[in-house]
Amino acid sequence: MPKISNKGQKMPESPIRKLVPYSEIAKKKGNKVYHLNIGQPDIKTPEVAMNAVKNFDIEVLEYSHSAGFESYRTKLSQFYKNQGLPIEVEDIIISTGGSEALLFAMGSTMDHEDEIIIPEPFYANYNGFSTASGVTVVPVISSIDTGFALPPIADFEKLITPKTKAILICNPGNPTGYLYSKEEIMQLAELVKKHDLFLIADEVYREFTYDGDVHYSVMNIPGLEENAIMIDSVSKRYSMCGARIGCIVSKNKELMATAMKFAQARLSPPTFAQVASEAALDTPQSYFDDVISEYRERRDTLITELNKIEGVKVATPKGAFYCIAELPIENADDFARWLLESYDLDGETVMVAPAAGFYSTPGVGMNQVRIAYVLKKEDLVQAVYILKAAITTYNAK
Amino acid sequence: MPKISNKGQKMPESPIRKLVPYSEIAKKKGNKVYHLNIGQPDIKTPEVAMNAVKNFDIEVLEYSHSAGFESYRTKLSQFYKNQGLPIEVEDIIISTGGSEALLFAMGSTMDHEDEIIIPEPFYANYNGFSTASGVTVVPVISSIDTGFALPPIADFEKLITPKTKAILICNPGNPTGYLYSKEEIMQLAELVKKHDLFLIADEVYREFTYDGDVHYSVMNIPGLEENAIMIDSVSKRYSMCGARIGCIVSKNKELMATAMKFAQARLSPPTFAQVASEAALDTPQSYFDDVISEYRERRDTLITELNKIEGVKVATPKGAFYCIAELPIENADDFARWLLESYDLDGETVMVAPAAGFYSTPGVGMNQVRIAYVLKKEDLVQAVYILKAAITTYNAK
Repeated sequence: MPKISNKGQKMPESPIRKLVPYSEIAKKKGNKVYHLNIGQPDIKTPEVAMNAVKNFDIEVLEYSHSAGFESYRTKLSQFYKNQGLPIEVEDIIISTGGSEALLFAMGSTMDHEDEIIIPEPFYANYNGFSTASGVTVVPVISSIDTGFALPPIADFEKLITPKTKAILICNPGNPTGYLYSKEEIMQLAELVKKHDLFLIADEVYREFTYDGDVHYSVMNIPGLEENAIMIDSVSKRYSMCGARIGCIVSKNKELMATAMKFAQARLSPPTFAQVASEAALDTPQSYFDDVISEYRERRDTLITELNKIEGVKVATPKGAFYCIAELPIENADDFARWLLESYDLDGETVMVAPAAGFYSTPGVGMNQVRIAYVLKKEDLVQAVYILKAAITTYNAK
Repeated sequence: MPKISNKGQKMPESPIRKLVPYSEIAKKKGNKVYHLNIGQPDIKTPEVAMNAVKNFDIEVLEYSHSAGFESYRTKLSQFYKNQGLPIEVEDIIISTGGSEALLFAMGSTMDHEDEIIIPEPFYANYNGFSTASGVTVVPVISSIDTGFALPPIADFEKLITPKTKAILICNPGNPTGYLYSKEEIMQLAELVKKHDLFLIADEVYREFTYDGDVHYSVMNIPGLEENAIMIDSVSKRYSMCGARIGCIVSKNKELMATAMKFAQARLSPPTFAQVASEAALDTPQSYFDDVISEYRERRDTLITELNKIEGVKVATPKGAFYCIAELPIENADDFARWLLESYDLDGETVMVAPAAGFYSTPGVGMNQVRIAYVLKKEDLVQAVYILKAAITTYNAK
């Protein structure tokens, strides 16, 4: 019998999806499940995007350019410029989701056993992309006590070896909701320039900031042009996760020429979804104002309700739509499974993502969960109410 | 300045796309270019597929299941069963094109510096996927003199080392058009079982056979269940290359569980394109009958015309829509560039893909080109007429 690769055996299971079989059990028992576990927003996709696909009249569904439709890249460049980011058409390669953009970035910058430093907790699939790329993740721990602020630069510097090729950040952060300040981004910029590293910034939640804080993009730092790689996506911006359209952006010509070779090998990004994404750029500002205001209220609701539970510690997120909460339990993995398998409050229960899967260091974050606030406020209130009752029952077991 | 990865530097440029800048020159000069270089069919996409997307009425464009919509997988399983292939829903993971299915297959079966044996000439992007996966391609040469039939099994056996993990075939072949016989497939099956290897078969051109020959799938060989991996795609079957929908198929449970981890890391395949692909399964048989008959006539036209050029050697393709032609020139790369940059016959010229890029062994196939017969018959006649005149002019230089 032929053998599976070591790489395949090491591929991590998604911490968000590994509980799905247990949620099936809950649903079979007739229980309603409040999904606090996934980043699938309930926000409507802009009509302008959906209509563009309905009105897309062609006879042959052809490949697009490997870098994506030129018309889309041109409009996207203008969109970034309007946001104050000096991004030209040739700085953009359209990818199949932010996921593929990350794979292109890793493949273009790192070889087998090279190292990438990532502040943890981090988006769990960074582990998957690293394993798939043969790259070693070197985590640097950030703490719930500082709201998951950037760890001291000295902590990064200690971890840099000749194999270190890049630092990867998610800003604003999934799963932390932390938004790096200009000072933090500048510190990282100085560090990567000093050590000739790439700074890969996953900025897919860029618009989602709630307290008037300004988002600082790595694409807006003079002198960082050769080091900065931005990852972007339409998934969250326009609530169109199913499109699978993202992009890799950089002013480093050699990097983009290399990423282009990866892009050519897979021929092109999906055509229908590019049509939708290009049209989505015409989404009126009022859409975003409404969405941001809705998320801000959801965040405030969630944090207020969580703080009512004794023993819960939570850092108020400044952006994105996640937070990490420390619960008064020992093992969040066991608790999350139990919530689905064995618990209900009047036929209702809650699904959360155990946070250990967002840490690379073993044994860290065992009593934490990631909560996505992608539900309506009244549902969030009810979900946290159930969570509170469940913690009491669980701890009394 | 940060460094590009070795892997990135080694990523091959696509032999199909690297001539694109020269075709731009030809077009700027006002010359009409007959594209014999690309596999983008001019056949209409079935209306049933396009209409499904037009009528797809949803408010939120959500992620699908990482393995693809269950409704699509269910219908696809039935489609395969109707073709005599015993493929169950759980044997299928929907991918973003056949490209991603190949990446999943390589990632699940091979580690850094493992070896994959591929009969050459082969689809050039196999090189790209191998490089991206850190895998070494070990080519085994097939010859134009046998019509690119399977090389003797002894030739494969000589190349097998402890690092060999899989054999990859494309059947019917791009770029050769060769269709492996049942006997050839059975020989490979015996070989991979003997050495505990995977047999990865890219069968995306399965329907495109022209002389009443039957296509033998690796999924239809009793006893090969643990070794066989099939790669499929909607791109050519329904002329919807831009959809970017394919799948990886296997009865090996461990392999599929591993591929699923790669699938989960990238979240899901594109939603619109899955809707189109599911609907495409209702395409009437008459569509395929027309398409196959059209391609058969194109093939016959192309081969007849090519044989009129003195010094041209061509193996009549049995399937797919490509052939490899040996031209009476020394360097097809130079010739192909010259055709675009410096040649025209009454304002018309031809773009072909130099075949050296389809070989892994250096220096082989230098006087060969790949020709795709994806143009109307009258255009094929004219294109070959131009090619004939061009060869005379080129050799008289």
